[in-house]
Amino acid sequence: MDASGGGYDPRSTRLLSFQAALTGFADGSDSPRAYLERCLETIAARESEIRAFVATNPEGARKAADAAAARWKAGRSLGPLDGMPLGVKDLYETEDMPTGMGSPIYEGWESHRDAASVYALRRQAGVVVLGKTTTTEFGFSHPGPTTNPFDPARTPGGSSSGSAAAVGARMVPAAFGSQLMGSIIRPASYCANYGYKPTYGGLNRGGGHSSLSQSHLGLHAGSLADAWAVAFETSRLAGGDPGYPGIYGAGAGLPPARPPRVLARLDGPGWDVADDAAKAAFEAYVGCLRAAGVTVLSGADHPGVAALEEAIRPCSTNSMTIIGWELKWPLAAYREKGEGLLSPAIADRLAEWETITVEQYRRAVEIRNEMRRRHAVLRPAIDGFLGLPAPGVAPRGLASTGNPIMNVPSSTLGAPVFTVPLLALDGLPLGVQVMGYPDGDEATCALARWMDENRF
Amino acid sequence: MDASGGGYDPRSTRLLSFQAALTGFADGSDSPRAYLERCLETIAARESEIRAFVATNPEGARKAADAAAARWKAGRSLGPLDGMPLGVKDLYETEDMPTGMGSPIYEGWESHRDAASVYALRRQAGVVVLGKTTTTEFGFSHPGPTTNPFDPARTPGGSSSGSAAAVGARMVPAAFGSQLMGSIIRPASYCANYGYKPTYGGLNRGGGHSSLSQSHLGLHAGSLADAWAVAFETSRLAGGDPGYPGIYGAGAGLPPARPPRVLARLDGPGWDVADDAAKAAFEAYVGCLRAAGVTVLSGADHPGVAALEEAIRPCSTNSMTIIGWELKWPLAAYREKGEGLLSPAIADRLAEWETITVEQYRRAVEIRNEMRRRHAVLRPAIDGFLGLPAPGVAPRGLASTGNPIMNVPSSTLGAPVFTVPLLALDGLPLGVQVMGYPDGDEATCALARWMDENRF
Repeated sequence: MDASGGGYDPRSTRLLSFQAALTGFADGSDSPRAYLERCLETIAARESEIRAFVATNPEGARKAADAAAARWKAGRSLGPLDGMPLGVKDLYETEDMPTGMGSPIYEGWESHRDAASVYALRRQAGVVVLGKTTTTEFGFSHPGPTTNPFDPARTPGGSSSGSAAAVGARMVPAAFGSQLMGSIIRPASYCANYGYKPTYGGLNRGGGHSSLSQSHLGLHAGSLADAWAVAFETSRLAGGDPGYPGIYGAGAGLPPARPPRVLARLDGPGWDVADDAAKAAFEAYVGCLRAAGVTVLSGADHPGVAALEEAIRPCSTNSMTIIGWELKWPLAAYREKGEGLLSPAIADRLAEWETITVEQYRRAVEIRNEMRRRHAVLRPAIDGFLGLPAPGVAPRGLASTGNPIMNVPSSTLGAPVFTVPLLALDGLPLGVQVMGYPDGDEATCALARWMDENRF
Repeated sequence: MDASGGGYDPRSTRLLSFQAALTGFADGSDSPRAYLERCLETIAARESEIRAFVATNPEGARKAADAAAARWKAGRSLGPLDGMPLGVKDLYETEDMPTGMGSPIYEGWESHRDAASVYALRRQAGVVVLGKTTTTEFGFSHPGPTTNPFDPARTPGGSSSGSAAAVGARMVPAAFGSQLMGSIIRPASYCANYGYKPTYGGLNRGGGHSSLSQSHLGLHAGSLADAWAVAFETSRLAGGDPGYPGIYGAGAGLPPARPPRVLARLDGPGWDVADDAAKAAFEAYVGCLRAAGVTVLSGADHPGVAALEEAIRPCSTNSMTIIGWELKWPLAAYREKGEGLLSPAIADRLAEWETITVEQYRRAVEIRNEMRRRHAVLRPAIDGFLGLPAPGVAPRGLASTGNPIMNVPSSTLGAPVFTVPLLALDGLPLGVQVMGYPDGDEATCALARWMDENRF
């Protein structure tokens, strides 16, 4: 595919990969400290424009990177993440930096502890926690000041705004994000990186202030290998959420590419609002896949796919019933803390959400379960589902983080999904998303790898 | 049944009932303020010995009770909990009192917000939050100073020590507790009250610092009517945990008594360690039930019951694998805060728990799922399961809160269970527990009511 305009070209733009640096650490030609310094240089050069971080701890990071460098030098590295600089979405607690959650209520709040997944990566895997990345207010609404690394007049997406932008700007090789509606997969598309929203419950959300039943901890990364390695190691060391098995897989190494047998395009309710140019780019991509011998079905070809498309049609309104009921606390409790501490956008939604009844909530959960059943029955027939991860490239302006409509199906289904940065429009990045089935993260990653390595 | 000794007689000892006071509020012969003052008098008389509370807010409670009294007087009460004094286990946040979690790490910590369930009851149902009740360290280990209201030389049980003792001492009509292994059902037995551990996920744990996959928010109450009313209203207003339907039922009023058709005794792995006197009292109770025409099966009579008993035999060790994996964070993060801040008991367990692998955890969850399947298949045949809620009466001494072995099955199965204060030994209370099926809380409560109203 051709980039039809300015700066971004998916064939030539490469973001950071920590996994690609490991051989240098092993043979002494590179070191985690040198890697970190390159990240810090990029941050120094670009942060004033991009504003991806709400806090950084460069001195703490240097100390941790030096310790990792010493381990690599002594041949005793802690594994594939030892010395890796990581951004952490500012909903998740870190012992050395405040956790502000994009709200004045928590501005400067310090828990002095690491969230479960941060703790495991820092203490057991050698990860270098470099900074906290900007989030919208409580991960929901009211954007921060972060700009898109490919055009500062455009949004990086949200709610994982800072994580997406920091990775897109080559400031860090990976950053934790979280997704309730579309907060990883869409900003990854806007910022040309690999977004990975695991199976629901796959990564431990303890200390993350996002306990909703569609909220997922996931990743932005400059390479698929880093996205997988961080997720796998997090799950291995910290587990999934309580009661969940975490992410199954053979190891932290990227699974072998899996040539797709049968894919389905799941246009979903977002197709109608997508830009014509984005739709055309996606159609061209599907055409290339078909020309390469991949079967790509649509609802017109397969009644099960049609049934799933029909079932998920109301997923946005249904999700808002679920999210609204689940978010009314703590937001209502925060409202008691003082006038004007919630943004008007959230305060208005809260007033609506307080009218939801437990019966309406139960019904919405039942509807979601029915959507999940329609999805699960396709497992024997369909390897994965393709779609646009956003209705177009990053929109102009910072007042909105864009429309999550393309991402609500995978959030609703709790299914693993990756953004692969394959396309471009007018010199701006546009990804393709590929979704699998709950607990099939490894197989879905293998499909994403095949797509990443077989470009057109 | 006869009380064979000293002070406690289940036929004559009655704890507080708020539901029984409602007619007085309606006709003006009583008021929530007067009710509260009676509670405060009892606290003043007995708290120095019982030490059920880590904090109280009598002035805030008086203000809230006056507001409730005004509503009752104006005929505009908020419902069956309007003006009800409530104790809250000190794992759950309250906006007006600190949340210490039984640990020096959180001593005096104030979140200045109400936990989800507390928020709903206080703001929407008119509940008067009177105080925070003592918990063991993080609801797990290392008892507080609370004594048993029926014998100060004995434990009240734990981890919901203060809640059980406060209700048992007539200080409050109800108090929130939480159960991971046996922290509601056992102390309720020791303290002669009605313990109610709902279906897993039935009551919203937001702001409760107990997110483990066997942790349940539940109740101690002086009457079954209050236990049900508080749980139902909490679920109606705050919901269950995110993704869970909450507690189903026709309303906040106690469901009609349900004469049992077929019960099973589930002696479980605790039977072998139970006191002979407790076993004899339970056998006598079962004998009375049979004499009254109730079928009470055992594993010897029913292969499905035998299969369930066999399946749950390893439930304590299996639970400890699950709990250990899930508790290693946050405990490991707390360990970083300084030497000696965790009790030696917890620090030692933590070191063990850190050797658990994600594969061992997954296996333990699978084993738990198999136990749940063996339970679920009995639903058409067996109305409920009877057992001792503890191996005997409250043990002497405060160094241990007693053995939770009788309670681990219901915690493992996520099934609703009630303690009904039916028995006595040597003048000390001993309950009977009745367990149902997940989401069958109302039917289980109806069985408990029948047992409560048909004493022998």
